[in-house]
This record gives sequence, structure tokens and C-alpha cells, in this order.
Amino acid sequence: MEFGYDARTEEFRGRLAEFMDEHIYPAEPVLHEQLDAAADPWAHAPIIEELKAKAKDAGLWNLFLPGEHGAGLTNLQYAPLAEIMGRSPHLAPEVFNCSAPDTGNMEVLTEFGTAQQREQWLDPLLAGEIRSAFCMTEPEVASSDATNIGTRIERDGDSYVINGRKWWSSGAMSPRCKILIVMGKSDPDAQRHRQQSQILVPVDTPGVRIKRGMHVFGYHDGDHGGHAEIVFDNVRVPAENIISGEGEGFAIAQARLGPGRIHHCMRAIGMAERALELMCRRTLRRTAFGGPIADQGVVQQWIADARISIETNRLLTLKTAWLMDTVGNKGAHTEIQSIKVSVPEMVTRIVDRAIQAHGAAGVSQDTPLASLYAHARTLHIVDGPDEVHRRSLARRELKQYR
Amino acid sequence: MEFGYDARTEEFRGRLAEFMDEHIYPAEPVLHEQLDAAADPWAHAPIIEELKAKAKDAGLWNLFLPGEHGAGLTNLQYAPLAEIMGRSPHLAPEVFNCSAPDTGNMEVLTEFGTAQQREQWLDPLLAGEIRSAFCMTEPEVASSDATNIGTRIERDGDSYVINGRKWWSSGAMSPRCKILIVMGKSDPDAQRHRQQSQILVPVDTPGVRIKRGMHVFGYHDGDHGGHAEIVFDNVRVPAENIISGEGEGFAIAQARLGPGRIHHCMRAIGMAERALELMCRRTLRRTAFGGPIADQGVVQQWIADARISIETNRLLTLKTAWLMDTVGNKGAHTEIQSIKVSVPEMVTRIVDRAIQAHGAAGVSQDTPLASLYAHARTLHIVDGPDEVHRRSLARRELKQYR
Amino acid sequence: MEFGYDARTEEFRGRLAEFMDEHIYPAEPVLHEQLDAAADPWAHAPIIEELKAKAKDAGLWNLFLPGEHGAGLTNLQYAPLAEIMGRSPHLAPEVFNCSAPDTGNMEVLTEFGTAQQREQWLDPLLAGEIRSAFCMTEPEVASSDATNIGTRIERDGDSYVINGRKWWSSGAMSPRCKILIVMGKSDPDAQRHRQQSQILVPVDTPGVRIKRGMHVFGYHDGDHGGHAEIVFDNVRVPAENIISGEGEGFAIAQARLGPGRIHHCMRAIGMAERALELMCRRTLRRTAFGGPIADQGVVQQWIADARISIETNRLLTLKTAWLMDTVGNKGAHTEIQSIKVSVPEMVTRIVDRAIQAHGAAGVSQDTPLASLYAHARTLHIVDGPDEVHRRSLARRELKQYR
Amino acid sequence: MEFGYDARTEEFRGRLAEFMDEHIYPAEPVLHEQLDAAADPWAHAPIIEELKAKAKDAGLWNLFLPGEHGAGLTNLQYAPLAEIMGRSPHLAPEVFNCSAPDTGNMEVLTEFGTAQQREQWLDPLLAGEIRSAFCMTEPEVASSDATNIGTRIERDGDSYVINGRKWWSSGAMSPRCKILIVMGKSDPDAQRHRQQSQILVPVDTPGVRIKRGMHVFGYHDGDHGGHAEIVFDNVRVPAENIISGEGEGFAIAQARLGPGRIHHCMRAIGMAERALELMCRRTLRRTAFGGPIADQGVVQQWIADARISIETNRLLTLKTAWLMDTVGNKGAHTEIQSIKVSVPEMVTRIVDRAIQAHGAAGVSQDTPLASLYAHARTLHIVDGPDEVHRRSLARRELKQYR
Repeated sequence: MEFGYDARTEEFRGRLAEFMDEHIYPAEPVLHEQLDAAADPWAHAPIIEELKAKAKDAGLWNLFLPGEHGAGLTNLQYAPLAEIMGRSPHLAPEVFNCSAPDTGNMEVLTEFGTAQQREQWLDPLLAGEIRSAFCMTEPEVASSDATNIGTRIERDGDSYVINGRKWWSSGAMSPRCKILIVMGKSDPDAQRHRQQSQILVPVDTPGVRIKRGMHVFGYHDGDHGGHAEIVFDNVRVPAENIISGEGEGFAIAQARLGPGRIHHCMRAIGMAERALELMCRRTLRRTAFGGPIADQGVVQQWIADARISIETNRLLTLKTAWLMDTVGNKGAHTEIQSIKVSVPEMVTRIVDRAIQAHGAAGVSQDTPLASLYAHARTLHIVDGPDEVHRRSLARRELKQYR
Repeated sequence: MEFGYDARTEEFRGRLAEFMDEHIYPAEPVLHEQLDAAADPWAHAPIIEELKAKAKDAGLWNLFLPGEHGAGLTNLQYAPLAEIMGRSPHLAPEVFNCSAPDTGNMEVLTEFGTAQQREQWLDPLLAGEIRSAFCMTEPEVASSDATNIGTRIERDGDSYVINGRKWWSSGAMSPRCKILIVMGKSDPDAQRHRQQSQILVPVDTPGVRIKRGMHVFGYHDGDHGGHAEIVFDNVRVPAENIISGEGEGFAIAQARLGPGRIHHCMRAIGMAERALELMCRRTLRRTAFGGPIADQGVVQQWIADARISIETNRLLTLKTAWLMDTVGNKGAHTEIQSIKVSVPEMVTRIVDRAIQAHGAAGVSQDTPLASLYAHARTLHIVDGPDEVHRRSLARRELKQYR
Repeated sequence: MEFGYDARTEEFRGRLAEFMDEHIYPAEPVLHEQLDAAADPWAHAPIIEELKAKAKDAGLWNLFLPGEHGAGLTNLQYAPLAEIMGRSPHLAPEVFNCSAPDTGNMEVLTEFGTAQQREQWLDPLLAGEIRSAFCMTEPEVASSDATNIGTRIERDGDSYVINGRKWWSSGAMSPRCKILIVMGKSDPDAQRHRQQSQILVPVDTPGVRIKRGMHVFGYHDGDHGGHAEIVFDNVRVPAENIISGEGEGFAIAQARLGPGRIHHCMRAIGMAERALELMCRRTLRRTAFGGPIADQGVVQQWIADARISIETNRLLTLKTAWLMDTVGNKGAHTEIQSIKVSVPEMVTRIVDRAIQAHGAAGVSQDTPLASLYAHARTLHIVDGPDEVHRRSLARRELKQYR
Repeated sequence: MEFGYDARTEEFRGRLAEFMDEHIYPAEPVLHEQLDAAADPWAHAPIIEELKAKAKDAGLWNLFLPGEHGAGLTNLQYAPLAEIMGRSPHLAPEVFNCSAPDTGNMEVLTEFGTAQQREQWLDPLLAGEIRSAFCMTEPEVASSDATNIGTRIERDGDSYVINGRKWWSSGAMSPRCKILIVMGKSDPDAQRHRQQSQILVPVDTPGVRIKRGMHVFGYHDGDHGGHAEIVFDNVRVPAENIISGEGEGFAIAQARLGPGRIHHCMRAIGMAERALELMCRRTLRRTAFGGPIADQGVVQQWIADARISIETNRLLTLKTAWLMDTVGNKGAHTEIQSIKVSVPEMVTRIVDRAIQAHGAAGVSQDTPLASLYAHARTLHIVDGPDEVHRRSLARRELKQYR
């Protein structure tokens, strides 16, 4: 047992932190100015492209991706890097080409894509030239239960025809989003976990209608490409667009979820660190009743509890990454579910305390806290609500005594 | 001791609830459509004027105002009516001419205004023809400590000259907002609570610059007239615009805060009731793992705890109203602070649970929950953060044993 | 709606508080000395009999009992008196002949007893000459579901024969306990709520074996007569010992539970007040890091939150009492369940904070706090665990939307 | 970074768990019978001596002690073993000669004792022949601030004379306790952390009066030797009894606290695991409303949250042990304080939920839960209350931004 980061991780951490200090944090107000100035809420901010070029030059690119296509880091090595990126969640992940859902889509194409699929879609994604979306969640059903899925993917000659309605397809509002990975039912009569397929659908395919962008606590998240509601009305794509094969949709989704969740958690830890830093700085500077509010016991309690819960959650997340590397995603299932429940609780609480420490500024556009909160709050819901994971965790715990 | 509402209250409750069912709830989507369709974020939605006319006709107008100018209700009688309005907080309070900060401004003018001030500003406010704002909070200081205030109101011949910077002046982004009540220091050398004055400043006075609208999470609250940051740069108004007299600012603020806080609390209880209703309806309708999620124990716990904490908070709020009516705002000070702390905690928790019960829809524009949350969250901060009130409550509790 | 106590209540409150100051609080250390000095853990402390005589003389006797046999107070009038008694829960309730389970047993005999039953058992109970126990809970089943009950009450000629095992029969370890009211099944084939009967069993009936006293966090509660496990082995009593009639057991239990729960809640509020007072006194006196710990923000937060939650819970309890008086126990069912959940949560939290404020003294025999905690903790369990009540509350809430 | 236990640890874990299954758990009821049967509350149970002999034979002895005198394990290696012992906290630690305060006293004598001190007191302690106590806490002062200490250790010729009053000297009620390590002020005028000394005082020295045993909730903890209040009245011991030298008392206390706290935390994690196991077993077996209560969502939430918080707290505790091994106790100071706050919160919550899952049995002597709770609750207080550690943690966090 050993709790220090290895040399390669430390080296990347150092370079990444330096890049954040030099380029990312100073660019945050620039991003907001560019977005405020744009007429179109889905406009792309030029600062992002500038920074992407710099990140590529610095060798801080595709760090998330194991194997030859990416930086080749393990989950355990990447985790603390994702944490650092999470400190500036509107800017850093995209700058380093490590932002969801592109990361998950690139993983899927790397692992399951054909050579042609990879050439057509993976290469430009790896290069940061296009963006992508993953169309999974549906408005009408509890999507935490995959068998509920309503969208149909039906074979018709050399094509598949897709009909259905998706929402929360993050990134799809962006004009730079070119390709959708769509999950749907290809065979409702197959066994439970063989009914689903995943298929590649270019955004400009006839019948694809981007209906609207979903809001998150008043934010449309335009800088991330928003969250689209999309109608698929007799959308026809070539049969070779299927990923891995008919009936493989559930397996692909499972493969994607482990890394996806741990990336979310690591970034969330970075968000919590950022909020804690802001809380410390603010309370040291702000005076009331004769002294800095950082001297007040209640504020100190918030700070201490924040530090403790960040540390405990970081360790469990790192152990989860280590398990994924050593025994595989399936062997890390309990731990993945644990951090999926525990980290969002930690980060929402800390950000909420940081907001309170800022007073009215905390809920406003003058700090990143309110938007951090909105994002953190969604983590209790995306990829399955807390309650579903707790139920599953309890069942596994109880099983050993049945 | 008696826990039933009196006949007059019951009669108003019945009529108000009927009006809500018939006119307000059906108008909620209309409001959103009109606001979405408007080019200007601060545009006034026509539906509001239509409903105001109906409310006036129905005799449901100015219910908040005691005495001859309003409906003449006591705080205890008005409280359950404010609760009902709180169920539709974007629409109902304004429709019944009971929305902050106009209510507080009307109370101040009724109690402290000269005949001329009342004629010029109170009458059109009572008629719902104009709106108003209250300029108290400042960006640079902890405004919970009134002695921190930086804005200056200086006598110069027959005028006062105002210099300073305010923010969170709610309503002031609306083109319908015509008058500001500004709090500032007229005599920094006077004793602690005699340094401040309040003065009437027409919005179109030279030197008044509405700088920007503050956001609450991602909302700009345009339907409420937003929350303005305002710069006062050598703003000159006639000396007769002073309210009640130089040095009276703190006393006026105190007089305003009691009713203001209790109105916030009563509306917040209505918000909680709305959220609980939505949570029940949703969980009965939504199915997962073989049954409605309303059958799940965790959801039932949320619902039971919501019901209990609404009841306990409502009772303390009503008792506070009764104390204000019987022993005055000062005699109700402890209870006012208690509900100021307790009610926001209750409503944020319930709305948060309702969001969770709705999944992704809960954070989106498809339910009122995310915007209810954003509003509820500010109640922990406005009119003094929870921590300041808890500190004051504890000191009073400890005093009896010193 | 009116929040003041009526004149009769105020008069009793004044006298009771005076009696507490003059006689009860000074007797607390005497009680502990007498108990510590006694060889027998179930010995009766002489101080209690002395105080009972004084209480009778002062006309503070049987305050709990409505109607001619007792003080004739309503629930709403008695509630604040029970609260005051709860401030010294080991001493005051018994001194005023208002302690469970005697109160419930006296209510049952008053309402359902025959003239002979009343003469034989109610009269000496009302006079405080004997004590009694209620044998309901069983070790082997979840007693919150009355249909689970295993004890049998079988007719055999002119007798009933009782077989079964009970525990947590509070008071039955006392040599002064002379009579048991036993709940059992007389007809397992009857409809669900007609299967049970209640019957009077003198403690000295052959076959009654008091097996042991149950502990509560290390306490055996000898001053209360402990909590007995009792085996009933072919216990034969005359048929006229049945209460109200065969099959009436469930109805009698229901009639008993409402007042029983509200008495527990009111006393618990008194316990919370006592703990809060101790917390204030201690933290004002105790010094650390250069000042009294009452000056620390975290302690002030505890105190403020304690005050708030005591107030809200007291109001709901009083409203519940008012409902019981005006619409009956059945009409107050939701509120009874609400306080049954909410009050124990409040009091355990406050006592726990008071313990923390006392440091090691708080968990020891040098303050009443640890034993208050132990007692408060059981309130989450007795008369049905929190979870059962929450479930029932949620179902009622949901019903209106089904 | 690596999260697996090393081979030596795994080997010890296997043997220890086997010993627990074979000898410790079956002996728990025996211990209680022997204690119940003893007339003297401080009597030693023979079963403990039997098991100690077995543990010595099995080579599971003095595992806590690094270096040649003990098993020579690192903190990181010992931590998971202490956790296993913590599953049976009344029995296992003493059986393996790893129980507080003997462990701390042995560490102190090993590190700071003279050859003679070691021979006279360390050797019989290592052999498990005697027990010892540490006299630090005083009734009159907040002992979390070491400068508050009131006991005097004054040089008088070849002797030191000790006067003062201590309490919570755990173990000192046992007739097997032969030696006390007493902390007191030898020079009140020295600098803050040089005023204190520690000195060896044989229990039978004239002037040592064991006044009484302190209770923890209703427990006197006789199986642990209780918690004594001790009066030192002109107690005279030879000058060579001083440990390490005059003025070294604070430094010795600091050296002791790190390992002491981490041992407490590791055992507490074992207590939590035990409580969780009991909760699972009970809820699977107990039926209500038509199924095992383990199927209820609320219970599953308790179980899932218990599993998560055990994992996160265990990891932080292990990392703390690793830091102590690699950078020393001082370098691990922040982490030691973090677990000192976090672990007690975790374990009290889990034990409390396990109690609730057991109903009335949970608070009684029929499960170990109530006594686990009482012990866990003290962990929020001993070695400094949570609030002191949080304050210190916050200050360190804030320091980097000052």
C-alpha cells in the first residue's frame, strides 16, 4: 500500500498546473466576455481554439485516452489530472480535449469502432476538429433502467431506420457537433441486455431535428454545446454505421459508464477544491462584526469539513481508478457506484457552503460558484440517480449474509 | 390557544385558491411563452396586466396592506394568503399587487411618507401602474451590518446629493420601475443608528445609471424586473424627497424588515407546498423497477419529512404573525429571526428533494422546480445571512443565564 | 387563531414551575443518592413518596386525566404542564402521578373498565398507592404491526388462560407494580383488528414470571420500575378481568396511543429545554482559548438551532393536542404521527449537542444529559419506529393525488 | 500509488480473523456472563486470561508495538489489524495486549523510559501481567488546552510531590492496574510547552485515592477497568520516576497522541463494520409488512451509506498511517486531525442506524450496539473535542491564502 503519485503522474500534474495558472484561469473572464458578446447562445468562443493549440503544443492533449491514440495513461494516472482540469470546468476539459461526452465517444470508437468509423469520426475528434454527442436519455422513461428505452433502430435493407426522441444530448446544440452516437432498441424480443444497439448518426442526416436546448438552473450551458432535445423521425443511415454489431448496445454502454463516472468524479473533486479555495480567499478578505469572517467558528467548520470530505472522496476515487486498472471495470463496480453517490454529495455541499460564504455574490455571475453548483447538482442525477446506486450497493452488501 | 383560521381568512383563502386554479396556474405556461418570445429580457408580459385587472375585479388586491389603503388584514390574516400566492411565485404576487419590493415600499410610504410623497408614488403603486425598487445592499460591504453602508446622501442647499453603488435592487431592471428608495449615510458622525437616511429617487434622475442585471444561478429574473446594479453619480433630488427625516433611515429599515421577512417566509411555505405536490404527482406517475417510484421507501421518507417540516414552519410563521399583530414587530423579533433561518432551510431541502424525484426534468425549464430552488436559496442570504441571525438568536438565549 | 395559553393553563404552569423550583430540582441529587445507596436496583426511593404527598397537597395531582377522576384538563391545557414535568423526567412525572405507563393504564380503566375493575385497580392507581405495567411488545416479532402478536388469551370456562412472552413492560420490575394489562390474541381467525383482547393480570398470579430487566444504553431505569421481560405460562385469571370485551384489544390500544404519544412528546420538549438550559449555563461558565465557549460560533449555532426546533416542535405538538380536543384522536392522526417522528429527532439532537458542550462530563453521571439521551433515543422506537410512521404519513399525503 | 495490503499484513489479517472467529466471538457471551455473575463491578473476567494465553501462543501479541519489543509492524501494517480487533472492542484488544491506555503507556516507556523504568513497568505490561492508566484529564478545566492543567508535580529533595485531581483515567478502577502515568505542571513559569512533566506513580503510593468510577451513559466499563476519578494528595515518589525529564510532559503527550488517535480510529472502523454486519443480518431476518425489512428502501440507504463512509474513512486512516510511517507523526498532523473528526462521526451514525434497525433490542443488553454507541460517542470528545480539531484544520487550510 502506497499513497504517493508516481513520477509520471507528478510530472504531468506539474505541467498541467502550470498551464492552468498561465493560460486557463486568466482566460476565464475572456471566455465569459466572448460568450456574452455573441448573439448566438451556441456560438463557439475563439479563446477556446487558441488555448487548444497551446495545449497541443504543450503535449497536454487527449490525456484521458489509454493506449496509442492518446497519452497512454492509466486511470490512476489520469485521475489527478482530470481533477486539476475540473477546477475550471467550463474551459479546461475542452482545451485539453478531455471533455464529456467526446471522451466517452472517443473511447467507444477506439474500442469498438471499425477502421472506417475510426477514420471518419475518431480522427477528427482526437484532433479536436469536431465535437460529438451521445443520445441515450429519453424524456418519457426512467432511463436508469436500460430496458425502458423507447427509441427504435430497425434494419431495412442496407440501412437502419431510427425513430425516437432523446434529450440531454450534451454538446449537440453546438454547430461544431457533427456526429451522434444513438442508443436504441434493435430487437425488443431479445434477452434483456441484447435488445439494444448503438449507431452512428451524422447530425445532418435528414430526419434529425434538434428541437431545443435544455436548461440547468437557468443555464443553457452554451459553452459546452448545451443539452439538446432531439427528434429522430425516420432517420436512415447505412447499415455499416452500427457500432460493434446489433445487440451490443448495452455492453458498449456499460464499457463507457465506468470511465465516464470516474472522470465526472475526479473533475468534481477539482470543482470542490476550487470552491474551497474561493471560500478561503473570500472569508479572509471580507470583514464583519470586527474581523474577517474566516475567524468565525461556523466558517471554520465549513472549511474543515470541506477539507476532510475532499480528502476521503479523493482517496476512494483514486482507489477506484486503481481497481479499474488492476481488476477491470467490472471488478471496480461497487467502488464506482460508491463514488457516484459520495462525490456529488461532497461537492454540492462544499459549493453550497462557498456560496453562503460569498453572500449574494455567490449566487450571481460574479463568481463561478452558482454555475459550479448547477453542474454539481446534476451529478446526483446523470448516469443514474443516487437512489438507484444506493439500492444496488445495499443489495450487494446484503448478499453475503443471505 | 386556538389553531383554526378565522372566518375572514377562510373566506379570502377560498376565493384566492379559486382564482389560482382558474387563472394563475393556467397562465404559467403563457407567461413563459411570452417571456421567451420577447426580444428584451426585461420586457413586461401582457398576461400579467390581464390578470391584474381580473384580480382587482375579484377584490383580491393589495391584500398585504393593513389599514384603509389596502385590504385591512392583520399579519395573521394575510399570512395564509401570501402562502397561497407563493405557490406561483413568478406570477401570483404581482398579479395581486403583493410582490416585493413594492409591498415594502408601499408600507414605508404609507407609514412614513408625506402627503405629497404618497400622492406621487404611493397611489400609482397601489394602483399597480408603476413598480419600484429598494436600494440597500452594496457590493463592497457586508450589508448585514448597517453601519457598513458606503453610499452618501448629502445635503446641499434645497437638495440632497447621492453618491454610491448599490446592487441587488430587485425590480429596477424593469422599464415599469419609476421610483427608487435609496438608503445611505447622511451623517457618518451621528450615533450608530442615526447615521442613515432613506430618500426617494426617480429612476430618470440624471446620474442614476442602471449598470447591469445580476443573475441568480442562471436566471436574470426578468419577469420580476431583475436585480439591478445601480451607480449613483452626483444624483441630485429635492430635499423634500427625504423620507421621514434625516437620520431616520435605520428605523425605517427596521420597520420594513419584519413584514418583509414574514412575507418571504409565507410565500416560501407556498413554494414548498407546490414542490411537495409536484413530487407526489410525479412519483405516482413515474415507474421504475416494477412500480411507481412513490412506492419506494426513500421517496416516502422525503414526502413525510416534507409534510412535517412544512407544518412546523407554518405554525411558527403564523405565531410570528400573531405576535407582530399583538405585541408589535419588536416583540416578535426572536420569532422573526427564527423563521428567517428555519423556513429557507425547509424550503430549499424540499425543493431539492422534489428535483431529485423528477430526475433531469427537475433541473430543467420543464418544471418550476429549478427556479424555485434558485429563489429559495437566496432566502438564506437576503435580509441578512442565516449565520447572523443564528448568532443573534443565541445571544438572546444566553443572555438570560449570564 | 390565537397562540396564548388560557388562564387556567397559565395558572397551573405558574404553580407547577414554582413546585419544580422549590421541590423537584433540589431533590434530583437526593434521588440519585438514595438509588446509589440502595442494595436493590429496583428499590423505591423514599424521596418520591415525600414529594408525592407534597404534590397532592398542592393540588398538582393526576393532571393528565380529563373528566371527574382527574384534574379535568383538556389535552391542550395539559400539554404545557407535561412539558414542565419533562424537565426532570426521572422525578417529576411520578411525583405528580403523571408517569407512563400508569397514565395510559388509568385512561384505559377510566374509559373501558367495569365498576369493579375501576374500584380494584383504578382507585389505588389514582391515589398513587400502586403502580402498573402494560404488556404489549414481544421479543420475537415486529410489534409495530399488531397482527404479529404471538401471546394467546384463551377462554377456558370462567377463566382466561394466557401464554406468551412480553418485554419492555416498563415499570414491572418495581415491587410496587401490582397489576399488568396484557395484550394478546383471543381469536386468531377473527378479522384483522378484532383478533386481540386486553386483560387484567395481577402480578402475583401463578405462572407470571418476571424474567429480567432490560437495559437502555447501560441504564436499567430502576427509578422508573425498569423494563421487564415477562413470561406468561398458563396464567389463569377470571373471565371478568377482560377489558371491554373480547376482540376489543386493538381498539383499546388505539385509544391509548394518541394521548400516550403526545405525553411522550410534551415531556420530550421539556427534556430539550432542560438540555438547552444546561448547554447555555455550561458554555457561559467554561473557558477555552481565551473566552467562554458560549462565544464560539459553532456553539451559538447549536443554541440557535435548538431554540428554533424546540419552538416549531412545541407548536405542532400543541396543535395536535388542540385537534385531539376538537376533532378527536382519529382526526389528529396525521399530526400525532408527525410529532411522533419530529420531536424525538429534535430532542436527541439537542441533547447530543448539550453533551458535546459538556465534554466528558456530558456522557457521565455528573449531568442528567446521558440518561436524557438514552431516554430520548428510545422515542424513535417505542410505539412504532420512525420509519413506520413516515411511511404512513407519506401514504396519506400521496392518497390525495392518486 | 497502490491500494493492496502487503503480504505480511495479509498474513496477519488472515490469522487474526481466524482467531476472532474461533475464539473471540464465541467468548463474547461468556464475558458478559462472567461479568454479570461477579459481585464486584471491577472484577476481572477469567475468560480474558484464558484467551490471552491462546493469543500469545498464536503469536498475536503486542502487534501494536513497532521495534524489537513488539511485533515490529509499521502503522500501516498494524492499522488493518486494529480494525479487526475493534469488531469486538470489549474483548479483542485486551486479549491481544493491544488495548488503550496500556498501548500508549508501553509506547511512552519504550521511547522515553529509563532501563529501570522499562524493567519495572514495561516488561510486565508487555507480558500482560499488569495494567496501567494515564492520568491527564482534569474535571475543572478544558483539557484540550494543555496549558490549563492544574495538577502540580513539585520537586522536593530526591522526590517529587504530586497534588491534583484527575478523572477519566481509564483502566484505573481495575485491581490489576498497578501503575499510573501522571501529567502535571512542574514549572508554571516556563514557556508554554515546557511547563508540564509526566511521572510514574505506583497505584499503591500513599495519597493516591481512587475516588469513583465515571459512567459512560449507563455503563461503568468495568471490563476495561472503568474510568477513575483520582485524587492525588501530597503523593510522594522518587525523583527517578520522572519520565524523560522535567518539562518533557507536553512533548511526550504529543508523541503519544498520534498513534493513540489512529488506533482509536482503526478500532472504530472495526466497530462500524460489526454494526453494519449486525444491521444486515437483522434486517434480512426480521419481517414486517410482508417481507424482510432489508428490502425496504430506507434500510438499504442506511446500508449503502454505511458501506461508502466506512470505505472513505478507512482509506484516509490508512493514508494517515502511511504518512506517519514515511514522514512522521508531525507530517501527518493534518490527516490525524481529519480522521479524529471524521471517523467518530461515521461510526456513531452507523451504529445509530444499526440500533434503529434492531428496534428495542438495539438499545438493550441483547446486542452489542448500545455499548458500541456509548463508546463511539466518546470519541467525539476524548483527545480533544471535534470542534478543537476542526478549528485547527481550518486555520491550517486558511494559512496558505493569508
